[in-house]
Amino acid sequence: MTVPDPAGVDFYFEFSSPYGYIAAEIAEEAEQRMGRPMSWRPMLLGPVFKLNGQQPLVNVPMKGDYAKRDFVRTARLHKVPFRYPDKFPLNTVAAARAFYWMQDQDPAKARALAKAFYRAYFADNRDISTLETVLDVARTAGVDAEALAKALEDPALKERTKREVDAAIAAGVFGSPFFIVDGEPFWGVDRVPMLEDWVRTGGW
Amino acid sequence: MTVPDPAGVDFYFEFSSPYGYIAAEIAEEAEQRMGRPMSWRPMLLGPVFKLNGQQPLVNVPMKGDYAKRDFVRTARLHKVPFRYPDKFPLNTVAAARAFYWMQDQDPAKARALAKAFYRAYFADNRDISTLETVLDVARTAGVDAEALAKALEDPALKERTKREVDAAIAAGVFGSPFFIVDGEPFWGVDRVPMLEDWVRTGGW
Repeated sequence: MTVPDPAGVDFYFEFSSPYGYIAAEIAEEAEQRMGRPMSWRPMLLGPVFKLNGQQPLVNVPMKGDYAKRDFVRTARLHKVPFRYPDKFPLNTVAAARAFYWMQDQDPAKARALAKAFYRAYFADNRDISTLETVLDVARTAGVDAEALAKALEDPALKERTKREVDAAIAAGVFGSPFFIVDGEPFWGVDRVPMLEDWVRTGGW
Repeated sequence: MTVPDPAGVDFYFEFSSPYGYIAAEIAEEAEQRMGRPMSWRPMLLGPVFKLNGQQPLVNVPMKGDYAKRDFVRTARLHKVPFRYPDKFPLNTVAAARAFYWMQDQDPAKARALAKAFYRAYFADNRDISTLETVLDVARTAGVDAEALAKALEDPALKERTKREVDAAIAAGVFGSPFFIVDGEPFWGVDRVPMLEDWVRTGGW
C-alpha cells in the first residue's frame, strides 16, 4: 500500500461513480493550480455502503431521479462528455486492481488507464465490470494486456487492492470523489474549488 | 396553499437545515441576479426521510462527521455566521407554521421572520423547536406575537402547513435547500450558481 503523502493530496474515487469520472477529468488541472502532488486511489463503495447502511445514490427514492439529471448537468458544467450507462452502477474491482498493478510500475500510465476506464464507461457506455472490457480498454491505453490478465489472477494484487480499499475507509472515505489534504476531507466534484481554496489559504 | 408560479423560482427549505440557512442568507441576491420572483417555502424533512428511508445527515456513519466540517466551511465560504447548535436536528413545525401565517399577511415580513428563525438557531444557538422561542424570535422581528400564538393553535394553520409539506414532497423535494425553476430541480446551496446559470442560459 502506498503511504499517504503528507505534503500531497489524496484523490479517492470509485470507477462506477459519475462524479468520480468528472473529477478525474479535472483533477490534473486542479493539481497544477495547487502545486501539490496528487495520489490517485481508486476504491470501492460497496463495502462503505455495507458499513454505513447507505445505498447507491440512484437507488434512493426521489434522490435517484434527481441524481440522473445532476450527473448530466455537472458533466456539462465541466465540459466533459457523459452518457448515462445502460448498466449502472456496476462492480469495478477488476478495474481497480488493474489500476494498482499499473500504478506500481508507472503512475502516469495508471492515471491514463483510470481515465480510459472512466471514458469507456461514462462516455462510451461500455461494461467495465467484465474482464474482457478491462483488458480491451487497457490494451487500447497502451498497457500490456497479457501481463495484466495474469496479474489479475494473482492473489497478491487482490490483497493489495483490498488493503487500499480498507485504508480508504479507515481514512473516512465514504463517497466518490473524495479528497484529503492535510487531514481535511472534501467530498464531491463540487468541492474541488473549496479544496483548492483550502490549499491556497493554508486551511483554517 | 400558494400555487407554484411558473415564471418564478420555488425555494424550499427546512428550518433545521444548515445549508438551508446559508441558502436563505444568499437567496435574495440570487433572486435579484436572476430577475425571477422567488417563493420561499419552508417544509419538513421528517416526512421525507420516512418516505425514502433516509435519515438526518449527521446521523449517517462517516458522513455525519464530515457534514459537521462542511457546514462550517460552507458558511465561511458565504461569509455567514455559523455555530453548530447544541440541539441538532430539531422539530421545526412551529416555525414553519409561523412562516406561513405571516406569509399570508405580508410575504416580505415572512422572509424576515424566516431569516430570524435561522439566525436564532444557527448563529445564536437558540432552540427554535419551542413555542416560547418561536414567539420570542417573532416578537423581535416585529411580528404580533400574541396573534401568532393564537394562530399556532388554529387547526386551519396546521392543515395549511401540512398541505405545503405534502406539495413539496409531491414536487420531488427531498432535501434542503431545494430549488425548482421551470420544473428543473436544484438541490443544495452549492447548486445555486448552477440554478442561476440555468435561468441565464434558458435551460438545456
